[in-house]
Amino acid sequence: MLTQIKEAPIATPIDRLLATTADDMAKVNALILSRADSHVKIIPELARYLIESGGKRLRPMLTVAAAQLFGNGNGNGNGNGNGSVINFAAAVEFMHNATLLHDDVVDESDMRRGKPAARIVWGNKASILVGDFLLGQAFMMMVETRDIDSLGVLSAASAVMAEGEVFQLSKTGDLTTTPADYAAVICAKTAVLFQAACEVGAMAGGADAAGRQALARYGLELGNAFQLVDDALDYGRQAGTLGKNTGDDLREGKMTLPIILALADGTEDERSTIAAALGDAEASAEQVAAVVAILDRLEALPRTLAQARNHARAAQHALEALPESELRALLSDVVEFSVLRAY
Amino acid sequence: MLTQIKEAPIATPIDRLLATTADDMAKVNALILSRADSHVKIIPELARYLIESGGKRLRPMLTVAAAQLFGNGNGNGNGNGNGSVINFAAAVEFMHNATLLHDDVVDESDMRRGKPAARIVWGNKASILVGDFLLGQAFMMMVETRDIDSLGVLSAASAVMAEGEVFQLSKTGDLTTTPADYAAVICAKTAVLFQAACEVGAMAGGADAAGRQALARYGLELGNAFQLVDDALDYGRQAGTLGKNTGDDLREGKMTLPIILALADGTEDERSTIAAALGDAEASAEQVAAVVAILDRLEALPRTLAQARNHARAAQHALEALPESELRALLSDVVEFSVLRAY
Repeated sequence: MLTQIKEAPIATPIDRLLATTADDMAKVNALILSRADSHVKIIPELARYLIESGGKRLRPMLTVAAAQLFGNGNGNGNGNGNGSVINFAAAVEFMHNATLLHDDVVDESDMRRGKPAARIVWGNKASILVGDFLLGQAFMMMVETRDIDSLGVLSAASAVMAEGEVFQLSKTGDLTTTPADYAAVICAKTAVLFQAACEVGAMAGGADAAGRQALARYGLELGNAFQLVDDALDYGRQAGTLGKNTGDDLREGKMTLPIILALADGTEDERSTIAAALGDAEASAEQVAAVVAILDRLEALPRTLAQARNHARAAQHALEALPESELRALLSDVVEFSVLRAY
Repeated sequence: MLTQIKEAPIATPIDRLLATTADDMAKVNALILSRADSHVKIIPELARYLIESGGKRLRPMLTVAAAQLFGNGNGNGNGNGNGSVINFAAAVEFMHNATLLHDDVVDESDMRRGKPAARIVWGNKASILVGDFLLGQAFMMMVETRDIDSLGVLSAASAVMAEGEVFQLSKTGDLTTTPADYAAVICAKTAVLFQAACEVGAMAGGADAAGRQALARYGLELGNAFQLVDDALDYGRQAGTLGKNTGDDLREGKMTLPIILALADGTEDERSTIAAALGDAEASAEQVAAVVAILDRLEALPRTLAQARNHARAAQHALEALPESELRALLSDVVEFSVLRAY
């Protein structure tokens, strides 16, 4: 086992996670393709366009890896897994993609994963309805496992995610948004699905209550770290990277932590500069650059990333409740890597 | 029992269904209100605006009545119901309302149930996301029953409904749409939820396989009849009735049976008149009147309603597999009434 890792010393943790979960993920991917099918041909066209557009499938990989951690990852084994991990992993990916379809309509996003968003190609209407279809299929796959407890975890996540999206929408352009509001938004809209993905994986793998709780916590903290990094990157990278343009969140009026911190600590003039650009879809590159300069002066991005690192450490700490193993170490490295991508 | 009916001879079947299900529906309504709640205040505002806007709650009433038919309607009784009928009825109503919210965005509808649509008051974005929230809450209520078989019925309905909506969208303004395409659309987008509502009610009431099948068939045929009548009424009533304006479907390019029949049997000129107005949001009242005149000449509305009556008879026929009872007779009368509303 150790040899295997030494043979590929430059592989990133994500590459290693891909390799470790490859067998199960092949089944997950086959299931995803078959369940995105329909006699209504827009459905597979749109769904596959999105699903095959180069997302890493981090969430279903986490489900698979969490199950493996408890010994029942391959879905053909003993224990109470019985193949359910494959269904849950595919369901998690469908839930994620349904959310992306609806989010892109709500955010009026033009790009997703480096290419035109589905709503640009097929329109908002099809994006809304195909999102609904994917969500329905996700629940069907879950029901097939007959595992009502895992269904409970994922159905609760589904409601909480939507609630978080509405909360975020209600805070759009709201200069009084607090760091606590932001924390509630990212927990609900992002971290809860990471949590559920890891938790149902652990459950399918036959984890006991402590194991299930450890993985749930791991997923939650990883998800929070992931979103904080994403929100910092929105201001920190050149156009084109991540398929997004710097300042998209600003133009959409999204109240992410860098902006919240800058509004709290900036001068009157700085606040005015931010407020003028915030939520203005037509804000110029110069306006965005001026806001980024304010964020720089106030160290808003490093402070945001420091919070991401806190969550990352909490995720790693949660794993320490479990017996040491190569896979446990890998899951810890995945956290490290998800934060490092900001540098 | 007979006396009771004689005391209120002019009550419509819907009034009688309301009276018969009143106790359970009070619980359903309380559950609906509590589950539409959230710390994010747009959610209860928008959800209650829609839910309390005078819909008849026909679908959850059918769930409750179906359970009563098999003796376990009150949700506190014996058998395998154990209160699950209340959860399923509320979940069915949430699924229906989630669909309405998304449909109104997709159809760009301005009115719903005689008042401005939620999307006009709170915007498309909130309507999409609150719809997602209601769907998530619906699944949570279902999971609480721990009845995986009923969950299977409703999750399948959820996917099929979305698939039907996408199919309908893909046929918008498509002059080659066939009566079979239309039948597939209304079955998926409308009848399948009526079917599921009745089926899970029967299951919660402790029905055997034959009883479950009878109620599923009853719901399916009633739903088909219901939608056919709705689609005829869209061309057959004065503005204001039903909160819709005559010709809305025409302006939206919706390929309903009256239009499909007229396109098949009309003259070249008539087809051109229809094609010119179809899908034109700005089509004038004169254009709509011209199309209605064509429908009249070709008897497209009576022919549509004849199909509705066929489905209605099939719904009533499905009930005949069950022992005679007052409630069975009432469910039969409900079918009659749902078709009669067209006259």
